[in-house]
Amino acid sequence: MSSKPASKVVPPLKDELDIVIPTIRNLDFLEMWRPFFEQYHLIIVQDGDPSKKIHVPEGFDYELYNRNDINRILGPKASCISFKDSACRCFGFLVSKKKYIFTIDDDCFVAKDPSGEQINALAQHIHNLLTPATPFFFNTLYDPYREGADFVRGYPFSMREGAPTAVSHGLWLNIPDYDAPTQLVKPRERNTRYVDAVLTIPKGTLFPMCGMNLAFDRELIGAAMYFGLMGDGQPIGRYDDMWAGWCTKVITDHLGLGVKTGLPYIWHSKASNPFVNLKKEYKGIYWQEDIIPFFQSVVLSKESKTVQQCYVELSKLVREKLGPIDPYFLKLADAMVTWIEAWDELKSAAAAAPAAADADAAKKDASSTKKK
Amino acid sequence: MSSKPASKVVPPLKDELDIVIPTIRNLDFLEMWRPFFEQYHLIIVQDGDPSKKIHVPEGFDYELYNRNDINRILGPKASCISFKDSACRCFGFLVSKKKYIFTIDDDCFVAKDPSGEQINALAQHIHNLLTPATPFFFNTLYDPYREGADFVRGYPFSMREGAPTAVSHGLWLNIPDYDAPTQLVKPRERNTRYVDAVLTIPKGTLFPMCGMNLAFDRELIGAAMYFGLMGDGQPIGRYDDMWAGWCTKVITDHLGLGVKTGLPYIWHSKASNPFVNLKKEYKGIYWQEDIIPFFQSVVLSKESKTVQQCYVELSKLVREKLGPIDPYFLKLADAMVTWIEAWDELKSAAAAAPAAADADAAKKDASSTKKK
Repeated sequence: MSSKPASKVVPPLKDELDIVIPTIRNLDFLEMWRPFFEQYHLIIVQDGDPSKKIHVPEGFDYELYNRNDINRILGPKASCISFKDSACRCFGFLVSKKKYIFTIDDDCFVAKDPSGEQINALAQHIHNLLTPATPFFFNTLYDPYREGADFVRGYPFSMREGAPTAVSHGLWLNIPDYDAPTQLVKPRERNTRYVDAVLTIPKGTLFPMCGMNLAFDRELIGAAMYFGLMGDGQPIGRYDDMWAGWCTKVITDHLGLGVKTGLPYIWHSKASNPFVNLKKEYKGIYWQEDIIPFFQSVVLSKESKTVQQCYVELSKLVREKLGPIDPYFLKLADAMVTWIEAWDELKSAAAAAPAAADADAAKKDASSTKKK
Repeated sequence: MSSKPASKVVPPLKDELDIVIPTIRNLDFLEMWRPFFEQYHLIIVQDGDPSKKIHVPEGFDYELYNRNDINRILGPKASCISFKDSACRCFGFLVSKKKYIFTIDDDCFVAKDPSGEQINALAQHIHNLLTPATPFFFNTLYDPYREGADFVRGYPFSMREGAPTAVSHGLWLNIPDYDAPTQLVKPRERNTRYVDAVLTIPKGTLFPMCGMNLAFDRELIGAAMYFGLMGDGQPIGRYDDMWAGWCTKVITDHLGLGVKTGLPYIWHSKASNPFVNLKKEYKGIYWQEDIIPFFQSVVLSKESKTVQQCYVELSKLVREKLGPIDPYFLKLADAMVTWIEAWDELKSAAAAAPAAADADAAKKDASSTKKK
């Protein structure tokens, strides 16, 4: 891990951040992101048919993993990584050895701010992650660490140092992230409102975390960024990021970390098919009525001091409290434990590898494509 | 109380809303608000020397109360109304008989939105109050009831009806609402960022409520909108609205009501003197470090079902938990009870008065100025 101060790094965090992209198609969308992404390292997780060749535009520094790579690297633990669902993106979080992750969908393009300027979403995420969050008390002028803003009258001085930011959740112009029923009811609704704010989701409050435009501090919260069992062979889809969001929020709250939402916006180009989505979602829509009260009432024990400990404790609570709803949650609780085992395994492999070979450590035996 | 549907009222809530203005000077600032306020009724609370004549621009419908009126109407209970502090504004909430209150400071002017359009702050507050709030779960696209927005994927359907909105907290362009230390450190900072959002402060989260640009549903929460003992003869000032904000937030949370913040903006013209403010604030700055944890841990009993019951219970907790900090809090706890007694007394007086004489009921024996 680099110990250079952030101010000397140009572009910021170049050597400390991976961009994770799940995909089933050619990554031509990267052309538009070239000025912002080109100097960063990409981890591409290819979903679906592994024999299909994914085209990555020239000049990007990337490694690409398909299902065969996932199976080879994780062995039997590969069962915790979803197939035919964007939940597979969390494999990228697992194999990364960087401190920060930015993950983005391949139908997301560069948005413009109201002045017509192209938005460097990654730079805004980095800013969000490198400045503190304020989960313990609400600041009415939004992010108090932003230029031109501060804490308002009545904000306790002892809370003005804030908390380390673990997650930066960005938003979407054009196609909003609606569920299938809302898509069906409002097929033409587009998000045109640019809200010029970043804010911290207060402690004790859950939110719907979308994985389309998301950054996080992998060291602080990565082990909880598991996107669950979705897609192929599972009774549910499109709840991968929601699941990760509920789990991470409960754990960041427990550990005194912050979660921000708001800027940056990306341009979401393509609404997915609402009929297909309805099929994927309907059990989730039903189950979430029990899942939300569960997460709202979760209290982790003082003994859980690391993200891994918290996550394993959470898996036990999932088994106990959500298991009775459907056997799916028993499988999910098992997968949560498998995920943590895989996380720790790859972490020790990386730690054991000599520093010089750092970049290749855990992936050396993979046939993953690597290019510069 | 009018039972007309809101849609038939033009301008909205004309007969169901009072505008409360505390002042020590001529109200020439009303000229700029004329197109937006002229059809509403004003309650002016004159602070300081009662012999001073306050000039109100022609054409406004108002009643004006000075200290002599307050003493005459409340008798010994007048002790709960602060003198020489904008906290006196809550007397206006007490004597109003309307369902809604909008209160604004006399150094607040009409702001412009980014398109250059003058902002009708009152209309936005009314919209905020008449649409539900979402205190139980965070919506990442902000107010889901706004045109062009909705609940995002993952928002539980059972929570989409929201909760009744009790409070609408508006913001300020130009001079931000900073405490004295921040004013001293950043004398030139101006708020120029127009954040185009309204959001609900989640349940369980406290916020610094500013009284400069504030609206609320008097029937739902008015009895908790007490601005405390500040100014003349008290060891503290500039914490009147903060106190009211902490109390109302704890009570709205307990009663399942919502508090919104964000739009509308007003243009705050005049920074108060930071040296004077420091003198008023310094005990508050010190005490709030204990007050905030107190309010964060308050749990009201199930027996407290009305705002009045909640407020009286809260006064007992203030006596018990904050009393040991300083005798001031014992006095404040007493004043909280006196305030509720005054609230109930004026309420029954209003109820007892014949409907035809409604407009004059509780104030008939006052020498308060009344004009059309």
